[in-house]
Amino acid sequence: MTMLVSGWVAIDDIETPFTSVTDSLGGSATCAALAGSLFTDVRLLAAVGEDFPDEMRRKLERPRIDLAGLQTIKGGKTSRWGARYSYDMNSRETWYPELGVSIDHLPPLLPEWDDCTAACLAAGHPVYQGELLSGLRAPRVTLVDTIKMFIDETPEELRQTIRRADFVTLNESEVRELAQMPSIARAGRDLVSNGVKGVIVKLGEYGAAFVSGEDYFVAPGYPLEDVVDPTGAGDSFAGGFLGYLDTVPEITRREIRRAIIYGSTVASFSVEGLGPSRLLTLTREEVDGRYRQFRELTHFEVDG
Amino acid sequence: MTMLVSGWVAIDDIETPFTSVTDSLGGSATCAALAGSLFTDVRLLAAVGEDFPDEMRRKLERPRIDLAGLQTIKGGKTSRWGARYSYDMNSRETWYPELGVSIDHLPPLLPEWDDCTAACLAAGHPVYQGELLSGLRAPRVTLVDTIKMFIDETPEELRQTIRRADFVTLNESEVRELAQMPSIARAGRDLVSNGVKGVIVKLGEYGAAFVSGEDYFVAPGYPLEDVVDPTGAGDSFAGGFLGYLDTVPEITRREIRRAIIYGSTVASFSVEGLGPSRLLTLTREEVDGRYRQFRELTHFEVDG
Repeated sequence: MTMLVSGWVAIDDIETPFTSVTDSLGGSATCAALAGSLFTDVRLLAAVGEDFPDEMRRKLERPRIDLAGLQTIKGGKTSRWGARYSYDMNSRETWYPELGVSIDHLPPLLPEWDDCTAACLAAGHPVYQGELLSGLRAPRVTLVDTIKMFIDETPEELRQTIRRADFVTLNESEVRELAQMPSIARAGRDLVSNGVKGVIVKLGEYGAAFVSGEDYFVAPGYPLEDVVDPTGAGDSFAGGFLGYLDTVPEITRREIRRAIIYGSTVASFSVEGLGPSRLLTLTREEVDGRYRQFRELTHFEVDG
Repeated sequence: MTMLVSGWVAIDDIETPFTSVTDSLGGSATCAALAGSLFTDVRLLAAVGEDFPDEMRRKLERPRIDLAGLQTIKGGKTSRWGARYSYDMNSRETWYPELGVSIDHLPPLLPEWDDCTAACLAAGHPVYQGELLSGLRAPRVTLVDTIKMFIDETPEELRQTIRRADFVTLNESEVRELAQMPSIARAGRDLVSNGVKGVIVKLGEYGAAFVSGEDYFVAPGYPLEDVVDPTGAGDSFAGGFLGYLDTVPEITRREIRRAIIYGSTVASFSVEGLGPSRLLTLTREEVDGRYRQFRELTHFEVDG
């Protein structure tokens, strides 16, 4: 089992009301790959510039992550991303001081990677995401994430691409915008009735909702006392979710629900550190322990 | 088993992006009483003015609601309340065109009502809420709700009163403001470490979180496709939650969790109609059916 992860490997500047960091390893693909590698083998497909520091590359050199697809673009600059969070960490101001190689250079799938069993495509141009999906011979499970930029600029291309994937992850405002409906539940169902197989609505600290033709599932957020930095939570969710699904014998309703809790669990660890720092030390045992706590925290009985 | 419900019976003007209503029966005690009466016998303690319409009173005349405490104040005017909701229904502008008798006349507990087994005290002055608690001989379970006004104006009195109750319900911004902490989980624990027995944080469409010395529970929101009017959801939660607890042989961790789901379930029906209109037709069978659906929507398995 091997999961393709595509997206950005970037250098981030992050400011929260309580702390800040500059020139820190970041990027959607970084978080998704680290999260996914807790469960399965990962192949990372992303572009960086010649300025990408060796010490950042070393953080990504891990037994379960294949970096053959981390391509250094000659003369290119690594993407830079910045975020400043509000007091309650639920809203942020984002900026892109340097879009860099992640926009200009869309690395094609390595020919020998066409046997990936799973594909976790972090935010990128929907046409490029579609090409990656086309390049895989027989993936068992695929996920497409996106950002507001692509909903605004290429909504029709995005709709086509997400219909071809098994799952799309969107946050609350994105699902509303894409479906043009104020109710999350209705927006999710609308996308499903328009041919999307499974919609995961990421609700940040409030958890996640999942809609497909066969199921509707809602999960609360894991209650954290200290959120250090929400950056990368959605990508950690996606990587953990799909990384888990890549390992199950059969992708059933039951396993999808479990995968959502695994994704939420990894995301809950992710926000405990600045950028992907917590993911660098996280173990599968810690994830399994918190998964069980998640169940404790949410279980209630039906029978009187 | 009999539950005291105190608070406002009011006349509301409500405007949402999709509909509006004027001169409609409303008020915190109205919703809490109707919700509670799905589970237990309710005694309603509230003041209205001479202008309170007979047709509104008739809506409250129900087999399980004792209106002996619904006092008409001579020369008084019924409280009026207004709300205008944003597009996603998650924020609202509130106004009080006429505070009326609910502020000027705080009806004392009827002497023959001192045997109530439960007390659901919807938002009111905390000193008054404390007096009501003192007037009960041996309540098994009590709940205090509040609003921003009392957190701003009488925070110390409020802290004293909520320490005397079994449960306090607060929304997200209220719990942050009262504990002066940005994390809900930390704010809840802080109130508990300062002597509050059980804190329920109402998260609107995202569900609820519960913190006590013995338990931590998180429940997602019931996914509704059409929210007509969120007014009274918190009061419906409180009435349903405490009404259910009033009926159980022993108030255990298990029953508190079940009560939170019952409260959430009743609240989810409440927002399907303007003001308390849906509560007027709601049956216990419908509530039990959706409770089971709630379980279906949220269940996930632990073992691999």
